[in-house]
Amino acid sequence: MKALVYHGPGERGWDTVDDPKIIDPTDALVRIDTTTICGTDLHILKGDVPETTPGTILGHEAVGTVEEVGAGVTTIAPGDRVLLSCVSACGRCRYCKEGRYGQCLGGGGWIFGHTIDGVQAEYARVPFADNSTYKVPEGLSDEQVLFLADILPTSYEVGVLNGAISPGDTVAIVGAGPIGLAAILTARLYTPGRIVAIDLADSRLESARRFGADTTINNTDQDPVAAVMEMTDGLGADVAMEAVGVPATFELATELIRPGGQVANIGVHGKPATLHLEKLWIRDVTVTTGLVDTYSIPQLLRLITSGRLDPTLFATHRFGLDETMAAYDTFADAATTGALKVVLQRAA
Amino acid sequence: MKALVYHGPGERGWDTVDDPKIIDPTDALVRIDTTTICGTDLHILKGDVPETTPGTILGHEAVGTVEEVGAGVTTIAPGDRVLLSCVSACGRCRYCKEGRYGQCLGGGGWIFGHTIDGVQAEYARVPFADNSTYKVPEGLSDEQVLFLADILPTSYEVGVLNGAISPGDTVAIVGAGPIGLAAILTARLYTPGRIVAIDLADSRLESARRFGADTTINNTDQDPVAAVMEMTDGLGADVAMEAVGVPATFELATELIRPGGQVANIGVHGKPATLHLEKLWIRDVTVTTGLVDTYSIPQLLRLITSGRLDPTLFATHRFGLDETMAAYDTFADAATTGALKVVLQRAA
Amino acid sequence: MKALVYHGPGERGWDTVDDPKIIDPTDALVRIDTTTICGTDLHILKGDVPETTPGTILGHEAVGTVEEVGAGVTTIAPGDRVLLSCVSACGRCRYCKEGRYGQCLGGGGWIFGHTIDGVQAEYARVPFADNSTYKVPEGLSDEQVLFLADILPTSYEVGVLNGAISPGDTVAIVGAGPIGLAAILTARLYTPGRIVAIDLADSRLESARRFGADTTINNTDQDPVAAVMEMTDGLGADVAMEAVGVPATFELATELIRPGGQVANIGVHGKPATLHLEKLWIRDVTVTTGLVDTYSIPQLLRLITSGRLDPTLFATHRFGLDETMAAYDTFADAATTGALKVVLQRAA
Amino acid sequence: MKALVYHGPGERGWDTVDDPKIIDPTDALVRIDTTTICGTDLHILKGDVPETTPGTILGHEAVGTVEEVGAGVTTIAPGDRVLLSCVSACGRCRYCKEGRYGQCLGGGGWIFGHTIDGVQAEYARVPFADNSTYKVPEGLSDEQVLFLADILPTSYEVGVLNGAISPGDTVAIVGAGPIGLAAILTARLYTPGRIVAIDLADSRLESARRFGADTTINNTDQDPVAAVMEMTDGLGADVAMEAVGVPATFELATELIRPGGQVANIGVHGKPATLHLEKLWIRDVTVTTGLVDTYSIPQLLRLITSGRLDPTLFATHRFGLDETMAAYDTFADAATTGALKVVLQRAA
Repeated sequence: MKALVYHGPGERGWDTVDDPKIIDPTDALVRIDTTTICGTDLHILKGDVPETTPGTILGHEAVGTVEEVGAGVTTIAPGDRVLLSCVSACGRCRYCKEGRYGQCLGGGGWIFGHTIDGVQAEYARVPFADNSTYKVPEGLSDEQVLFLADILPTSYEVGVLNGAISPGDTVAIVGAGPIGLAAILTARLYTPGRIVAIDLADSRLESARRFGADTTINNTDQDPVAAVMEMTDGLGADVAMEAVGVPATFELATELIRPGGQVANIGVHGKPATLHLEKLWIRDVTVTTGLVDTYSIPQLLRLITSGRLDPTLFATHRFGLDETMAAYDTFADAATTGALKVVLQRAA
Repeated sequence: MKALVYHGPGERGWDTVDDPKIIDPTDALVRIDTTTICGTDLHILKGDVPETTPGTILGHEAVGTVEEVGAGVTTIAPGDRVLLSCVSACGRCRYCKEGRYGQCLGGGGWIFGHTIDGVQAEYARVPFADNSTYKVPEGLSDEQVLFLADILPTSYEVGVLNGAISPGDTVAIVGAGPIGLAAILTARLYTPGRIVAIDLADSRLESARRFGADTTINNTDQDPVAAVMEMTDGLGADVAMEAVGVPATFELATELIRPGGQVANIGVHGKPATLHLEKLWIRDVTVTTGLVDTYSIPQLLRLITSGRLDPTLFATHRFGLDETMAAYDTFADAATTGALKVVLQRAA
Repeated sequence: MKALVYHGPGERGWDTVDDPKIIDPTDALVRIDTTTICGTDLHILKGDVPETTPGTILGHEAVGTVEEVGAGVTTIAPGDRVLLSCVSACGRCRYCKEGRYGQCLGGGGWIFGHTIDGVQAEYARVPFADNSTYKVPEGLSDEQVLFLADILPTSYEVGVLNGAISPGDTVAIVGAGPIGLAAILTARLYTPGRIVAIDLADSRLESARRFGADTTINNTDQDPVAAVMEMTDGLGADVAMEAVGVPATFELATELIRPGGQVANIGVHGKPATLHLEKLWIRDVTVTTGLVDTYSIPQLLRLITSGRLDPTLFATHRFGLDETMAAYDTFADAATTGALKVVLQRAA
Repeated sequence: MKALVYHGPGERGWDTVDDPKIIDPTDALVRIDTTTICGTDLHILKGDVPETTPGTILGHEAVGTVEEVGAGVTTIAPGDRVLLSCVSACGRCRYCKEGRYGQCLGGGGWIFGHTIDGVQAEYARVPFADNSTYKVPEGLSDEQVLFLADILPTSYEVGVLNGAISPGDTVAIVGAGPIGLAAILTARLYTPGRIVAIDLADSRLESARRFGADTTINNTDQDPVAAVMEMTDGLGADVAMEAVGVPATFELATELIRPGGQVANIGVHGKPATLHLEKLWIRDVTVTTGLVDTYSIPQLLRLITSGRLDPTLFATHRFGLDETMAAYDTFADAATTGALKVVLQRAA
């Protein structure tokens, strides 16, 4: 089959590789119908993720059709259309039993396109298939559910739910890239009073407004702390989310927050940040971190089915699966192309 | 001054009475600018509420202007426009400290138009003024905030928050009178997947659709249990609210609920109901009851200010304050007049 | 092998039956080392549980040794000592993913000795073995963990956790049979200020004091409502648990509760009860029901391992496994024998 | 009257000063019967707290007898024995209504011995008396309740409750000074499986064992991270509390924690710390900070009344109120004297 293979820092190819096979009785074999590219894939390509070894097929987001299942698989069958979660869950360990699949101790967690072959390919082996796939409800297109594989649950679980948004809250979101936009979109499920998006790029802030931000602040020319304090009687935001992954944005999030507020870190960080405990110790602040678990996929599917949530806003570019190399180019150059998410679709 | 006085079962008058005065240092004297009538006022008039003695001024919902404050009042001052909560809070007892003002042990709770003179009058004495009034944010009209005195917080706190609605949930609301409609309106703050309204009157179900119900069921000609089971794969509603106050509707709510679901009783009951423990013991059901506390008023004010919530939908009829007698006639005959809430406004 | 077989109302035998076999790849075959008898087994024998057909092996509580596992079982292996949960969990359905194994939609729930053969036998087939068994920590005896199969998690999850006990609370427990005693024992994990046990039998109240009740009330000669009101400044208990399963005790629990309190029903009910909504609608009461899920087994195992919890108090009588018929006689006549739980042990 | 007056860095005196008087109608005048000294008083004396100006009477922990109340005070009366909270609550602002008295916006918060005169004196003016004092239950001595003024609620609210301890948890407490010991004492209310105390001084670890630590680690000669990992199967502590207030101990707390765990900062910090987001972003960690609110005083009083909690363990030294200068010497030299808390009592 064909697949997008990582060949070491900066190197990738759309290669012919061996077809995957069922190995464990809990595996399924899935034909990939639709997939996409994540910022994390670009990090791997830069060489930032040493656990991913050359020769690995990339990708951890897909919708596909079950081809074959192992002897222990009971909830899906050949022919079923399924969403593949970016996080695999053994379903049996302490963390899986608590719904913290991202911390799975039984061989799951984020493994696709990371420590095992991923889903930017014609076919994929899906471990722990019963606990790591979700049947696509009838009537929903691949594109409607594709972004539930990773980006929507990430921002919803790690940002919105960890941040414990209540109706009427002022929510500040630092970073208006795809993760920040997904935070805006899913924060709205709790009807905050005001969503404030903060970023350095006007183009991203324009997207933020399109996704539902009420106020946008470009912090190259406006002081976001002063602005948020002014709109909150000097108290600060009820909830602040970090959606970038660098020390400065995290520290900004902790400055935006009111006493008793919540700082939800969503960004992937490579360096430590400074926590200003000399100011924060007295302010009743809660800071949360987290890897997505995707426990919210069934809930998000219900919201899409009932017409309450429309993730297709993210699909800015579409390619055939055999154009994956070109799709990477487009996605990697988002500043120029304006790409949010690219959709790669198998030829019918 | 003039006021609407209860004269015993079936008897009321728009009488000239003594002006109220400050009695305790925590009192305020408030000129009533806008008030309304509650179903409970009709119950009192029927003689159903023996604690309310003839001679009592009725009414527990108003917006007004502070005329004078007692020596111990610090947060409001003459000239301030304030919303009066239907529940007074001493602010010092165990229950007030937990935000359960409806259970106040220090002389508060629901007292206006119940055990002390109420607010359907030109002026009112407001006990515990610091903890029982809310400044009206600039730019909001009386009519925008009036229904926060009772009906909105009642349905929001006792129905929506006790019911613990999550985004995507199927929410069944039994009863589409004003309380049921307020439950629909405020349930939407949590983006349920589907709101199902159940009532015997098509006219009320039409209102339900206008307030945001997705599905309406007239249970004179359709089995609501079968209908809800069908739309939930046989499981039942995630949350069911009782918004009538008779045994049959409560029992219906407990039949509509899925295993693990929540039944939130909002209705005022005069008789016991049957709890089918022989079916429910095994179904992980939670049943809640409650009197409104109005702790949610500040949150609801923020939602109105930010344009997320519009309670003016309730205002179907408007009268001058001196037309209170006629307003009662209109409100009491809601089946004919279609009245949801009547607004009584002082002449400018 | 030998097993305790139900032969229809009132009839049981210690019979020779076919050895169980692995059927599904998720099954395990377990040699039963220690088992016990539950009040529910007596109900089945009385004919109260029509789903249980004659010919079924009874019993749903056991500790054993794995003999063989199906191809899909990965977390236990032959030779492992395991606790069998009374509730089987498919681990894949919506309810299992939420930890509500008792409501499993995938073929689990309470099935042992109910809809499939149980564990009062020399061997048992254990479905969904990965999600329904727990390795016994080294150093713990069978008797130390046996009561985690059902009775302790039942009272802890459905009584203590549903009741949301806080340190310092007054907790009233109606019924001091084994379930009530397990509620006392596990309530103490949250350091209530006072545990009040209420029962009709002095002998059971004596057990209650031994398990940790601070106050006991025999309601044949004392009014429990008056007594609880007196010790709580007229407010009522913070938490009341029903541990009997008849209407009168449930109704008593709802009378004992303070405004804002929690009524946790643990008992198995065969008849409806009256819910006095005419009093309760205004009192902010929460009523919960539930079937045990046994999600708390890992937590309870940690508490036993660390010496914080000692369930062996329940073991009043011990028998060999081949004396199961006699053990039933002793357990069924608890009023005379004083049996709380009987321990049936395989010959070494 | 006599009072302990701050005269600038390093300078204090037991001076004759003017008697306090009622100023606001919500004030009370209280005769101080028993008081104590806090580590924060020593910080003020060092000059670390610039808001406290020379001439201020120090102290924020006391039990006393009401002498006089302002016109607006309704819940206490002359002659009542009351506990004074270290935190004053206006009872009317947003934060007070949420029980976050430490963040009071209405003039309260930590003001005693900080921005107004404190309670190490013969008499004290107590602002917002209705919401800032607690009647001492009959039968309890001053010494039994004195430490509820600050240290016990601090460790309980900011450490134990923010840390969300569950029965069976492994709890690591970094620092075994008085705050760490109070964390140990109150953590036990939730029956953790193991309490691990970490400190540099063997004498403090000996106290930790006396207060209930199961394991103690002197981190001058043992690696606490390795030790905690070993006792938790390599996962880490469920809850880690910081009870010192320097960057190194905070950072240690974040290293001790398991994925999904809680880090509760109790210490008062003067410098920022490093938050190792490059490791923590993926570990589902929650970090909380907080100033005490003392909302838990009523609960802790119930626990003392029912014999479940004994704070008198802290009283290592006793002095007459007129020996306050000597008491400061003893408390300031805790390393030599072994002082935990000193009790200053008015002559009978």
